[in-house]
Amino acid sequence: MVGEGRTRIVVTGGGFGGLEVVRSLPQDGVDITIIDTRNHHLFQPLLYQVATASLTTSDIAWPIRYLFRRRPEVTVLMGRVTGIDTERRCVIAEDCEPVPYDILVVATGARHSYFGHDEWEPYAPALKTLEDATTLRRRILTAFERAEAEPDPIRQRALLTFAIVGGGPTGVEIAGAVAELARDTLKHDFRHIDTTETRIVLIEAGPRLLPAFRPALSDYARAALEKLGVELVLGEAVTLCDSDGVVYGGERLAAGNIIWAAGVQASPAASWLGAPADKAGRVRVEPDLTVPGHANIFAIGDTVTIAGPDGSPVPGIAPAAKQQGRYVASVIRARLKGRAAPPPFRYRHDGSLATIGKRLAVVDFGWIALKGALAWWIWGLAHVYFLIGVRNRVMVALSWLWIYLRNQRGARLITQQKDPVEDDIL
Amino acid sequence: MVGEGRTRIVVTGGGFGGLEVVRSLPQDGVDITIIDTRNHHLFQPLLYQVATASLTTSDIAWPIRYLFRRRPEVTVLMGRVTGIDTERRCVIAEDCEPVPYDILVVATGARHSYFGHDEWEPYAPALKTLEDATTLRRRILTAFERAEAEPDPIRQRALLTFAIVGGGPTGVEIAGAVAELARDTLKHDFRHIDTTETRIVLIEAGPRLLPAFRPALSDYARAALEKLGVELVLGEAVTLCDSDGVVYGGERLAAGNIIWAAGVQASPAASWLGAPADKAGRVRVEPDLTVPGHANIFAIGDTVTIAGPDGSPVPGIAPAAKQQGRYVASVIRARLKGRAAPPPFRYRHDGSLATIGKRLAVVDFGWIALKGALAWWIWGLAHVYFLIGVRNRVMVALSWLWIYLRNQRGARLITQQKDPVEDDIL
Repeated sequence: MVGEGRTRIVVTGGGFGGLEVVRSLPQDGVDITIIDTRNHHLFQPLLYQVATASLTTSDIAWPIRYLFRRRPEVTVLMGRVTGIDTERRCVIAEDCEPVPYDILVVATGARHSYFGHDEWEPYAPALKTLEDATTLRRRILTAFERAEAEPDPIRQRALLTFAIVGGGPTGVEIAGAVAELARDTLKHDFRHIDTTETRIVLIEAGPRLLPAFRPALSDYARAALEKLGVELVLGEAVTLCDSDGVVYGGERLAAGNIIWAAGVQASPAASWLGAPADKAGRVRVEPDLTVPGHANIFAIGDTVTIAGPDGSPVPGIAPAAKQQGRYVASVIRARLKGRAAPPPFRYRHDGSLATIGKRLAVVDFGWIALKGALAWWIWGLAHVYFLIGVRNRVMVALSWLWIYLRNQRGARLITQQKDPVEDDIL
Repeated sequence: MVGEGRTRIVVTGGGFGGLEVVRSLPQDGVDITIIDTRNHHLFQPLLYQVATASLTTSDIAWPIRYLFRRRPEVTVLMGRVTGIDTERRCVIAEDCEPVPYDILVVATGARHSYFGHDEWEPYAPALKTLEDATTLRRRILTAFERAEAEPDPIRQRALLTFAIVGGGPTGVEIAGAVAELARDTLKHDFRHIDTTETRIVLIEAGPRLLPAFRPALSDYARAALEKLGVELVLGEAVTLCDSDGVVYGGERLAAGNIIWAAGVQASPAASWLGAPADKAGRVRVEPDLTVPGHANIFAIGDTVTIAGPDGSPVPGIAPAAKQQGRYVASVIRARLKGRAAPPPFRYRHDGSLATIGKRLAVVDFGWIALKGALAWWIWGLAHVYFLIGVRNRVMVALSWLWIYLRNQRGARLITQQKDPVEDDIL
């Protein structure tokens, strides 16, 4: 494989996993190509803060080619991967020539899933890309604008009702952020509505919020959200989303705003490769993260499933994707040098973090659990630390400082054309 | 007019003029409604910096209702004005009930004009709204991405050619910013193209750049742009824009990027009011800025034309709109108190500023002309000063600091779906 020339390594996807592979690969004897649909890497854990007007798009996104500007052996291509030709060993992408590889790392991530009800998507937008976030921001802020202009009190009430589907970290974080937006930030800005009466209903099909955390922290999150005025519905699955609201437990909730924070569907990597997959489309990779039957193709991150040391699947979170990226780079390094392969991938869970609101967060490190103000500071510092570059750290810290001191969210912008479906809502 | 209740004052448009009217109006005895298509006021003089990835959208936009949150007599409505019923004295807007007024101030601004060639617009986007800026940013950054992936050297060359139409401050500022983006910011980021060879052609139909400035400053701007590698074409009108480029002086320039910075068309205020207008649709207002035949309707800003003290028309710039706003507020105040009307509006020109690049700017105060580094610092400080609020001043100053020190532009994001027409370009 090392042969006459340089080994061609192709990485599809510039998320946490894909970036980590490239960062951890050697610079000599290789030509690395990284292909992504977008020109930017996105810090998804803070995407909900763009959707709720706390941060702006550029705070949490970096041009991928900027990150590798000092690595001449790295080529960045912008294009949507549509297939992989394992015979000819090349990646097929829109707007590019086929890209040949000696070693391929598939890190194309996941999108949200509506459990077979894709027709709900226009009414219940989810959050995965920067456009999703600015679209959701527009819809949230427009709901208050429409309510202000609405003479019918019943429609006004529905416009001020937010149904959030899914009680994992994203659902909890969005519910808390919408509550603070309505109760603190917008309080003085309207004349015909009282934004502090905004109704926020968080619906989780399972028996408790934040199932990845220990039960005591789920209870704390529940109490903290209720203190912020969020209504919780546990143990009920949503059975319908439409222009009038949601249905769960046989009851209809009239809601002008539905936010989808449940369910994940992997990228089509498994079908490109004819690889075994689970229900969510995640490739069942080998213990060394190769794709079964393809020793020179690795797959990592949200697009794969693999068991962790305790037997449960490795969670679809940024630290897991990064660990997998570093591991794959170590396997490739060993191959390039003709050394023995490292032992199988072993996931190490460093902890789970979720924020609910100002001075309200939960942190579960396994060996210790924290909640409240201390957990909130840890959450904030950890997220600032994991951002890339001094500039973005300063900008995010400043934005948070302003929210902390003055409840002033800096990015309350309604932009882009509305979707045609929005005219039908309520 | 003051009658039994409170005087209803309606202001259409939350630009520089409209905001200034509301800010300068008294708080007692009036109900003020401000209507805008957008939820935000936009600091248009820095819009080109969003288009060229230097600033982010929220740096230069503020929610209008946030600006008046402490003024309970001010109601803000989001809606597109579609007409004015002068018989029933109400403003007709989409998504709102008709809004009745006793006194109306029309400040609906202007958009760009293609001199009767609206079919050029898809190929030659212009810059007036935040969406225009993020669209232009996407197209500029995508051109470099496409050139990187383009095997045909002739098409690659065309993708790296930018034609900028119009040599006023906007055209000059965009040309300089694109030049710095290509030559400094992107220099290390690509592998198959040399971004420093990007061709930027600025085309002005008149005999010199920056016609509002004294000729010596036009000459300086020309020399400064040429030093940045911008090619200048003076005295030639563009006669065609299409998917292959522009035509001027009978010659075709193959250009994958055309940016329109020429021509302005006023909002349809004149037709809503049946008022006399100039060629660009600007209402010819009375000396007290009322609309002829309507003593209770004022019009200000880019949607009107009026002669300045030297006989030439008042320019369509922010300070002029603000002066008109303050003047109209003073007329309304006098009427509310039953006092004599103030003397006719008199425009005072404080100066013209334009920036070309790092430490390159021109300032013409009338009594003194400045150029180079000193003018650049004055330009920067003046713009930071005129931004609203401490938060945005800090954010913009920090963004500029990073560009100054490291050539690092913080908002290099390709977002939003591409227009269908973009697939046809080249």
